[in-house]
Formats: sequence, C-alpha cells, structure tokens
Amino acid sequence: MKNQFLLLILLSVQFNLIAQNKRVRDYGIEIGILKTGVNNSITDVEGVKVGHTTLIAGDSVRTGVTAILPHSGNIFQSKVPAAIYLGNGFGKLAGYSQVKELGNIETPIILTNTLSVPVASNALISYTLAQKENSEVRSVNSVVGETNDGWLNDIRGRHIKEEHVLTAIKNAKGGVIEEGNVGAGTGTICFQYKGGIGTASRIVPKSFGGYTVGVLVQTNFGGVFELNGVPIAKELDNYPRQYTYDVDGSCMIVVMTDAPLDARNLERLAKRAIMGLAKTGGVASNGSGDYVIAVSTAEENRISYQNKSIFEEKKVLKNGAMTPLFLATIEATEEAILNALFAAKDMKGRDGHEIKAIPMEKILKIMQDYNQIVEKE
Amino acid sequence: MKNQFLLLILLSVQFNLIAQNKRVRDYGIEIGILKTGVNNSITDVEGVKVGHTTLIAGDSVRTGVTAILPHSGNIFQSKVPAAIYLGNGFGKLAGYSQVKELGNIETPIILTNTLSVPVASNALISYTLAQKENSEVRSVNSVVGETNDGWLNDIRGRHIKEEHVLTAIKNAKGGVIEEGNVGAGTGTICFQYKGGIGTASRIVPKSFGGYTVGVLVQTNFGGVFELNGVPIAKELDNYPRQYTYDVDGSCMIVVMTDAPLDARNLERLAKRAIMGLAKTGGVASNGSGDYVIAVSTAEENRISYQNKSIFEEKKVLKNGAMTPLFLATIEATEEAILNALFAAKDMKGRDGHEIKAIPMEKILKIMQDYNQIVEKE
Amino acid sequence: MKNQFLLLILLSVQFNLIAQNKRVRDYGIEIGILKTGVNNSITDVEGVKVGHTTLIAGDSVRTGVTAILPHSGNIFQSKVPAAIYLGNGFGKLAGYSQVKELGNIETPIILTNTLSVPVASNALISYTLAQKENSEVRSVNSVVGETNDGWLNDIRGRHIKEEHVLTAIKNAKGGVIEEGNVGAGTGTICFQYKGGIGTASRIVPKSFGGYTVGVLVQTNFGGVFELNGVPIAKELDNYPRQYTYDVDGSCMIVVMTDAPLDARNLERLAKRAIMGLAKTGGVASNGSGDYVIAVSTAEENRISYQNKSIFEEKKVLKNGAMTPLFLATIEATEEAILNALFAAKDMKGRDGHEIKAIPMEKILKIMQDYNQIVEKE
Amino acid sequence: MKNQFLLLILLSVQFNLIAQNKRVRDYGIEIGILKTGVNNSITDVEGVKVGHTTLIAGDSVRTGVTAILPHSGNIFQSKVPAAIYLGNGFGKLAGYSQVKELGNIETPIILTNTLSVPVASNALISYTLAQKENSEVRSVNSVVGETNDGWLNDIRGRHIKEEHVLTAIKNAKGGVIEEGNVGAGTGTICFQYKGGIGTASRIVPKSFGGYTVGVLVQTNFGGVFELNGVPIAKELDNYPRQYTYDVDGSCMIVVMTDAPLDARNLERLAKRAIMGLAKTGGVASNGSGDYVIAVSTAEENRISYQNKSIFEEKKVLKNGAMTPLFLATIEATEEAILNALFAAKDMKGRDGHEIKAIPMEKILKIMQDYNQIVEKE
Repeated sequence: MKNQFLLLILLSVQFNLIAQNKRVRDYGIEIGILKTGVNNSITDVEGVKVGHTTLIAGDSVRTGVTAILPHSGNIFQSKVPAAIYLGNGFGKLAGYSQVKELGNIETPIILTNTLSVPVASNALISYTLAQKENSEVRSVNSVVGETNDGWLNDIRGRHIKEEHVLTAIKNAKGGVIEEGNVGAGTGTICFQYKGGIGTASRIVPKSFGGYTVGVLVQTNFGGVFELNGVPIAKELDNYPRQYTYDVDGSCMIVVMTDAPLDARNLERLAKRAIMGLAKTGGVASNGSGDYVIAVSTAEENRISYQNKSIFEEKKVLKNGAMTPLFLATIEATEEAILNALFAAKDMKGRDGHEIKAIPMEKILKIMQDYNQIVEKE
Repeated sequence: MKNQFLLLILLSVQFNLIAQNKRVRDYGIEIGILKTGVNNSITDVEGVKVGHTTLIAGDSVRTGVTAILPHSGNIFQSKVPAAIYLGNGFGKLAGYSQVKELGNIETPIILTNTLSVPVASNALISYTLAQKENSEVRSVNSVVGETNDGWLNDIRGRHIKEEHVLTAIKNAKGGVIEEGNVGAGTGTICFQYKGGIGTASRIVPKSFGGYTVGVLVQTNFGGVFELNGVPIAKELDNYPRQYTYDVDGSCMIVVMTDAPLDARNLERLAKRAIMGLAKTGGVASNGSGDYVIAVSTAEENRISYQNKSIFEEKKVLKNGAMTPLFLATIEATEEAILNALFAAKDMKGRDGHEIKAIPMEKILKIMQDYNQIVEKE
Repeated sequence: MKNQFLLLILLSVQFNLIAQNKRVRDYGIEIGILKTGVNNSITDVEGVKVGHTTLIAGDSVRTGVTAILPHSGNIFQSKVPAAIYLGNGFGKLAGYSQVKELGNIETPIILTNTLSVPVASNALISYTLAQKENSEVRSVNSVVGETNDGWLNDIRGRHIKEEHVLTAIKNAKGGVIEEGNVGAGTGTICFQYKGGIGTASRIVPKSFGGYTVGVLVQTNFGGVFELNGVPIAKELDNYPRQYTYDVDGSCMIVVMTDAPLDARNLERLAKRAIMGLAKTGGVASNGSGDYVIAVSTAEENRISYQNKSIFEEKKVLKNGAMTPLFLATIEATEEAILNALFAAKDMKGRDGHEIKAIPMEKILKIMQDYNQIVEKE
Repeated sequence: MKNQFLLLILLSVQFNLIAQNKRVRDYGIEIGILKTGVNNSITDVEGVKVGHTTLIAGDSVRTGVTAILPHSGNIFQSKVPAAIYLGNGFGKLAGYSQVKELGNIETPIILTNTLSVPVASNALISYTLAQKENSEVRSVNSVVGETNDGWLNDIRGRHIKEEHVLTAIKNAKGGVIEEGNVGAGTGTICFQYKGGIGTASRIVPKSFGGYTVGVLVQTNFGGVFELNGVPIAKELDNYPRQYTYDVDGSCMIVVMTDAPLDARNLERLAKRAIMGLAKTGGVASNGSGDYVIAVSTAEENRISYQNKSIFEEKKVLKNGAMTPLFLATIEATEEAILNALFAAKDMKGRDGHEIKAIPMEKILKIMQDYNQIVEKE
C-alpha cells in the first residue's frame, strides 16, 4: 500500500544513512511501548558514566575495553546493590560469587575480551587500591565481563593492558555515548554481522515511580536475527544451517536503574534482559556467555564501607511494583542490541577475516515490506 | 501489494475459521525456521501422551486438569531425567526440590488451577501407590503445575477432585490433542484474551540427531501481545497502561524431547522456553508463576527403580550439541502459546466475568498489513 | 580422674532420668558457647507459637502434625520475610519456589509425614481462605515440610486429615513445648534410634543486637552419631556398615529469629543450620530431605498485603552483622537435634517394627569417659 | 583412668613432636570411621598431583601458590567433570559460571591470595595457550581460588607473579605432599592460629566401588575450634567474643575422587565438604569465602575437546550410591583442616604481626582429658 510514498521514505532514509549514524529508532522503527530516556542510553540513569578504550592496530588487533560506572564517587566506599544473572554461563565473567552472596558491587564494571579478563580484573584492583580512602583495603571484588572477539582480533596476543582499562574508567562520561565498533565491542560479531556496543533506556510510568532503566550491551552472539519482530535472517536466508561445536559468541548485558531495588529484585530484573535478547532472535546458544549485571544506583540505598552501624535502613520497591521495570528492561535490552548492530561498521581483522555491518538497505527494504517503518511527521 | 489477492485469501481464511478450528500455522503464519513434527504437538515425541479433564458447570465452575505422561509404563519404576526451571517463581508448583536434587521425575505431570495443586498432588500419590509394582512404595514426588483461573472460575470452591485428575491420566493419548478451553486451560486468560492449552513441536536437523522437541503450555499470563513479531497489542491499543499489584497470571510450560539429555542440559533447555514466551510479548510479570518442566524420554536413559547396580550407563548429548535443541524449544514454545490463543473460545464465568477469544478477523487483518501471512500454494 | 565422684553424679543422673524428662543440657552437656533463651526453645523468639497433633492409633498409626506460627496475626495479610535452603532436596516440601521468588511466607509452617504433604497443604489453603480478612484471596502458598515415618507408621494409609492440621495450628502456643514422640516427630527415626521433635535457642551478644535465634527440628535422619563431639556411634559400634539404596530419612529444620533480616540474609542463615546438623554426625545422605526454613519475625519488616504503596521501608541487619547469628543457628540446630533424641521414647509400630530411644545410661557413661559431663554446683 | 600410662604416652608424643612433623592421626586422634588412603592425601586419588610455590621474603612477603592437577595430561583437551559449591561466597574465585554451566574444568586448579587471583588466572591462560595441542584455543576458563593472607602478608604488594604459578604447576607431584606454611597456605590464619595447606583422604567400602575421596584445604577461617569434637577453643578460652566487621578469612576446599560422578552429583558432594568444615568449629562467617571445588578424575568420563561426536557415553554412579562418598568427603575435609593446623608453624610477617601455631602441648593435654587419644599397639 502507498508504495510510491514508501519508496520516497526509503530513499530519504538511505540518504540520511550516508549522512550520519542513525540508531534504529531514527528509522521510525519503534521497539516496545514505553518511552525512552533523553538520550535513549544507559547514561539516562542519573550519575551513570561509560568510557571506552578502543584498540585497533595493524592487521589483527581489534579489541578494547568498556567501563560502566554506577556513580562518580568511590565505589568501594559506597557500594551499590547488584545482582548477576547467568543466562548461559559459558563465559569468564569475574566477580560472580561475591555479588551473589553480598548483593552488591564495589568496583566499576569492565567489559573486554575473553582472554583479557584477568588483566582487567587486575586493573580494577590497582584502581581501587590507589584511591586515597582505600589505603587499608586488602580485598577487592572486581567485576569484569567479556565476549570473545577472537575471529577478528588476535585474542591470543592479549593486547589489552592495565592502562587501557584505567583509561576507559578515566574517560567515562555521561550523556551520549559511542556505539558500534568501540571499546569492548570493537571486534565482536552478532548474527554473523558486525556487532558492538549498543545502549538504550526506558522510563516507567509515573505511578510506578517514573524510574529509568538503562541497558548497555556488548553483542557477540548468534541466532536467527529478527528486527522488531521482522524475520530478517529468514528473508535474507542468512542463518546457521549447521550448528557447529565452536564457541559461538556471547552477550554481556549491563542494566542500571535509579529505582531503589534490593539484590533479590535486581536478580529478577536481570533475568528479564535475556527475554529482550530473545526478541532479537538470540538463542543463548551453548557456546554463548550471556550474563546480565543489574545495579540499582539509588543513592539512599548505597552500602557505606565506613559506616559501622549494624543496620541498614532501606526504602525499596516492593515485589508488586516490579512489572513495569521488567518490561522496561526487556524493551531496552532489545533496542540496545539493535543499536549495536545499527552502529557497527564493516571490520577487517586477523588473518584477513572480514565481517560486514548489517546490510542496511536490504534490511530497510524488508522492514518496509513488513510495514514496520513508522512514518514520522 | 497484491492487495486483491490478499483479500481473497483473507476471505477464505475467515470462511475456514467458521468451519473449523485452525491453528496459527494454518493461516500461513510460520513461526521460526525449523520443521514441526507430524502433529505439531508435544505428542510428536514418541510415547508422550496427554489427557484432559474439563470442568464446566453452572455459572462459575470453569477449570480442569491436564495430564502429560512421558511414557506409558510405570513412571515410578522407570523414572525420566528431568529439570524444572523457575522463570518467575510466583506459583505453587509441587515437586521442585526433588527434581532439582535427583534430576528425575517419577509421576505423570499434572497441570491444574492454583488452589487444586494439593488435590492433584494427592491424586498422583494415590495413582502411584495403587500401581501393582509399587506396593512397597512409601515416598512419591508428585509434580503438579498450576495457573490461577480465579477470574472466570470459582477457584475458592476447589471443585477439582482426585477423580478428575485420575481421569485425565486415564484419558491420556498420543496423536492430535485438544487445545484451547480444555483441561487446565479451561478458565485461563492470556494477554487479556481467552487463553488455554496449546502445543507445538520442532524437529532438529538430522546431523544433530533428528530429535523432536514438543511443548505444551497452559497460558494464563499478560504482557504486550505480539504475533510472530507483529505488535498486535500496540495496533489494537490493548495492553496494560497501569500495572496493578494483583496476581497477573502465569504460564506453565512442559517440554518433552526424545533427545538423550541429562538433568543439567535439561535445565539449560528449560531456560530457553522462557525465551519463546518472551517472543509472544510476555514479560514474566511479578505475579506470574512461569515454570518450565523439561523431560528427556529417551528410553535408554531411564532410571530403573528396581535395578540395584551402583552404576548408570548413559549415552547423552554433549553440551556442544545443545544449540539446535535450544532453538527448537524457543520456537515450539512460542507457537504453542499462539496455538492456545488461536484455539481458545469466548468464555463466560464467575460473577458474570467474560473473556473474549482473540479478535481473529482484526488480527488477521493486521497480519496482512504486516505482510505476515505466507501464501501457500 | 575423680572416678568415684563421677560415679555418684552418674547415679544421680540416672535417678533423675527415671523421674522426669531431661534435655541434653540438664545433664551438664553444654553445646557451644552462646547463651540459650529462657526456655531454650524456638518459642523464645517473641510471638512464635508451636502446636502438635499426635496420631497414635492401633498397631500402625504413628504419625502427626507440627505447626509453627511466626506470629499470632493473619499471616497472609502480614507476611514474614523468609528463605528456604535445600540442604539435600530428596523431599516433598511444598512452597519452595514462591518463597525463593518473593522472599516471604504467608501461611503457618506445617511439618508432617511425606505422603501427607498435600493434605496439609490443602488444610493451609482452607485455613487461609476461611480467615475473615481473606475473603477475596484466590492464591495461597502453603509451606509444608515432611520426613518419612514409614517404618513405624502406616504411611500408605495416609491417616492425616485436614482437621489434624487445623487442630495443630489451633493448639499452637508459646512457652515450653513438647519434644520427642510428638506431632510430626511421632514416628521418626534418627541415627537408628527414636527421633522426634526437638527445639533450642540462642541469644547473640548485645553488641550485635541481642537477638534470639530459635530452632525446631523434625529428626528422621542417619549418619554416625556424635554427642557434643563425642563419637557415640563409634563407641557403641552402631552405625551403618553397608549403606543401602533405601530412602534413609530426612531432617526438617525451622529457624526463627527476631533479628530484622531480609530474604537474602535469611537464606545465608538457613545454610548454617546444616552445619549444626553436621556436628551431630549427620551426613545429609542421598535419601535425606534436609530443608531449612528461616523466618524473620521482626514486626517492622512484615509485608502488608493491604498496603498499596509501591515502597517498603526496611531496617535490616547488614551483612557484617550476620556472623553471630550464623553461630547461634549452628548451635541451636545441634542442640535441637539432641533434644529430640533425648526426649524421644521407645516406639513400636507398623508390622511390629520397634525403634528404641537412645540408650541413655550407656551414652551418659560414654560422656563421662570423655569428660563431657560438666559438673554443676 | 590409667592416668600414669597416659602420661607416658603424652611424654612420648611430645618427644616425637620435637623430632618431626606429625599429623593429627599420628597422635592417635582418629577422625571418623572410614579408612584413609595410603598417604592420607588428595594424591591418593590416582593421577592427582599437587605443587607449591612458597614466597617468603623480607619482613612482609608471606604468600604463595598451590596447584592441584586432576591428571597429568592436557587438561584443556581432556576436561574433567566438576562442580563448584559456594559455601559462603565472600571471595574472588575465578571460573565459577562456566563450571556451573558446562559441568567441567579445563585447567589446573590454582589457589593463592585474594589479590593475586587475576595473575594466577592469567598464568593459567598462558599455560594453556602454550600447550602444543592448544594452538587454536581462544577461550580458557581458569579456575583459581583464594583466601586473604593480608594480616601476615603484604597482600597489597601483589608479589605473586605468573612465573610462581607456572612453577607450582611444574612442581606438581603425587605421593606425600607438604602441608602447613607452604604454597597458598604460607600466610593464612585459622581459628586465630597459624593455618595453611592440609590434606587427607578416605576410601569408601568395596561394595560401593572402593573409591577414594581426597581433599586439600587452604585454611584461613575462624570460629570456635573443636578438635575431633573436643572443645579446644572453649577450654583455652580463645574464641571471638566480639565479632568484628572485618573480613575474617575463608576456606578453599578442593575435593578429588576417582568415583565416576557427573557434575550434578559432584555438586552434591561439594556441599558435604562444608559439613566437614563445620565439625572443626568453622561457622562460614560473613567475611568467609568458603568454596568447594569437586572433580571426578575417572578416566572414562573425561570430556575430549577433539572428539566431534554429538554423544558422550558415560558410566556414572547413581544417586543411590552417593552416601558413602558424602561421608568420605565430610571426614576427609575435617581431617585435612586439622592436618593444616598441625603442620603449620609460627609465622611473623607484615608490620610485625605474628601468628602462633596451635599450642600443641596444651591441646594434647586437653585431648587426654577428653580421652580422645587412642592408644596404639
């Protein structure tokens, strides 16, 4: 219907594509029903900062580091309630058990490549020990996630150094953040296309507190790609016919919210992020390390290291107020993954391997055919 | 495009609708990429049987029982490897901890309403104690799932009796099984429409063993309905604007496969069913009891109660062969939920409450608009 | 040393034994280092009540029900923070998943025999639906634990009826409670001796809040019995030489505390109870259903069903204040198990099976030999 | 009784003490009822090797590395079924989630100090990548445990380097292994005395397969010390009166067995190790990182990385055969902890801190008083 008009839209879409980076929503593709935050970014959660170090060198170094900070203070001294959910645990994430036991996180969150987790973990120790208030600290629970960028990147070369991690932390900032082939997403692959870093956010209705949920993803996983429910992989006849035994990617998902949640409800929230991943066609395949780190940044519930009272006074959301936050997490995760795919560019790397960005024109054509491009006035 | 032709299809679709029950796939709506089994049913897994008892009486009894049998033998004497995954544990499922500890199930699986779990559990004990070979049995782990049909059904009346459960077991059969307002799905509600029982199946590629995964669901949950990725709820402007604190439904999911899996990989399989639920727009809301019971029916790995050897010899699928089964579970769960919605009919019940079936014509029109009706030759 | 003096003590001990029931501590055997509560009982936790129904009839009915109430109000309307830990999940406990998900308990806790869990569960539904404020309640998460008394009791006869459960709840009272062959402990066996119900309590130091931890156990498990570290089973040459495949008992453990704990720290607390069980020589054998239900009774943290605020304001103990409560739980669990054994009497039951109480004289003699009887002035 | 004779034994005991290292059993103190292996060591499990690197330098370097190898082959190419249990997760163990998901371990197990986990983890990556058959490996799940030796050791100095880890692996050998102030136990503290590395083993009865269970511990935890049930801490009036908020140690426990167990039953086995710890008076305090890593070395069940079959054929022990292995694990863990305490020597370290070995004479005297020294012929 209205094919000629659609063609015009399509052309204008393609024109814009050349002109600038556009996110999935900029094409009139609307994920879900909730509103986004100002920047549709994890940084819409007040105080959250993100920093990248991107390492591209020679023919085969294609990797990096992404740091996510729940607040700008000394995180060890002012810990944040947190939970980690193991969607599929074929991965090397550092820090799980202490978060599970104590319900909090005490360092920035670092994402990087699989074989660089120890270096990043060490860097977080260095970072924490070096902070002035931490001069007597002798125990640090580094939280580091990873995906395997070993197809494009010379991962065995272990090119990430502590300084790259410290720089990512230092670079962290709020506002609009870079997506695509950047930081820990530099060398990642998603649905056989170039993956990367993506982010999105949602606001829950006022009557449920008006809280923000922000998600950042490092996309490196496989499956049968769907874009807002449209079967792109099927249309392009581009999905795995023979599943191999090889490690087939992973997805790291970081969820931040200013909603005052305790660790138990944060774990429930974290589980919903995998539901968002599912909606893109991800299958959490055997070789996938799909982890969700969920953090509540609400200032009043931070855990002070110095305060020696035996009590914590907390104001937290009740179980019964969780559903809108669950929906927000699902939507923001789905859109963050799509934003990563939309932002990523072609990348050539190790041994001449090359991974293409999603074929934007073809995809937009399919979206048109499926009537999924919302005309904006 | 080809609008006139589509209109013809649409009309014929509507005609057929009146004439007979059609499942989602009969409308040319194809979920996923894998092939279905012969009946697109949990009973495609060899030996699996399903039986219903439907209780509709007076103005307010709208409930029932569904029994799923992994095989036709004495299940206590010949237990099946199994796992239960708690997608969201706001529910009363019986039998979790022993399945978790021992990795097997020793009774038929019963689904019913929330307040009838104890009766069903008792019926499974009666059933098991009465079997001839079980004359010395003094411990039975009943597995009973439930959702809350209390809007349409006088659930507080607890109308389910042991005999209804025993009848459902006795009625169990293979082949084509009834869907919709039947058995444990008699009084359920899904996405604010009439829910019910649904089923579907998938076959994994030969190179991965050619195994069948069958799913049966009792749909009673909420969210923002999507049909094969098409935003039906959005188009119909029919989704919760204000989330309430009330218990808002649940989804029981039973997954059967003839793939030889141990309990650990069955738990991984079970987790994927929630990903299928996510693709229909489910959010696993706070009040939802979303449970997945996964069973391997492979004869060679059954656990004999009489065999007193200290060893079990098992041939199981490796971790690396799980991915196709994960995809099969996701697809079959999504389609089973849709089949439940497509089969369910309007239902009037307790206190004059009425729930309508999905508005088929409107939905098919939307599906057309989204170009999601595949023309069959 | 001082053998003659010891002999005198021993004689006086034996004399007293005939005269009245004595608990382990009455013999000068002191478990641990913390102080007990006034009655050394779970009822030392303010507001906690315990009720028993004991069913002894004919040659073979040897069973019963024990109800534990965290407070005297309407528990559904005023839920208590709670956690359940699966020490070894070979059991039929009802209610696990909802407690895990929501972190609270909404009914009295019932203990009974394995095959009577559904009846008890049904009784809790009846109890809850019948309460005036609950006239609109359509979902109840019954919490019922069990052990298998099938050696002495005609468990297949399923003699427990709903009325027995309701009577146990009605009978519940604070203060000194009966131990031994009573309620759910009527037909249980422990270390091949007569087991039963036992209880104990501990007070943590003032500087850690001065809280009380109370434990009640239903002892029905095996292992290599030790009494305050003294190897009784070894001395009496009475322990399993050949482990059989048969179901070999279980231990249900209920922990109550007035310490204001959230569900996460209650789960940590619950895990410590199994450490107390370990100190009696229990091994959590394969067939054992060893469950710990932990509840915080602190009034300020109860979860009101009516309150429609989206927030909960809580004052809870910090992680760093948990250690004394852990120790209290370990000590009270160990002593509760011993109290059950000390209180239980010989019992004859089904098919002429007979189980003897612990051989008190021999045991006290061994305790003397091991210098473990503290002389009281 | 027979006091004079006992005095003679005591004297001879003390004489021997001076002459050589004696383990707890050498004093006639018998833990449990099962037989030990030849060396009463984790190395009694065929093929298991242990290596230490001990770092003692200047005034304040008091740390080290202990490596445990399940077999002498390429572990990445021939993985071993495994499970990790979080007794109390206040710790930094690396490798948890992949072991949980896949049920196996693919590197040697390394123990070290808290802040050196990343270095050890990196060393395991280096070790694995360097093995000839692993030239295409791009993903390694390092398993590293730790306890905090920061009281005696300058832990903030992070003195462990990769080479120390590689040396520990290289040094690994079977037979008698060093205990006490060695490897990862160099700077640890247990019950306020000097802790360290300890080991022990048990053999289960022939009718249950005659398997060996070996345990190695790195003891660094607190509580109320008991020695074979004798209340040493109480007698010596040496236990914490005021629990502080400080990190209070940890216990790493490695369990190896030649019994053919799958990951599910290995997790159950691992849980029992904490029951052994409980019997020494440990409380798994808030600040304790108490982890159990359990591995089955049975050759027939190893997971070949090269074998591309989709099947695994396994012969595993049934649930019903687990109880003797549970008991073996409890006994060996208790004795391994005691062996660590008996082997450890006084240690002076950082900032002049000094920790004494257990006061052997006083303890033996108490053991005599409690009639716990078995006279050997």
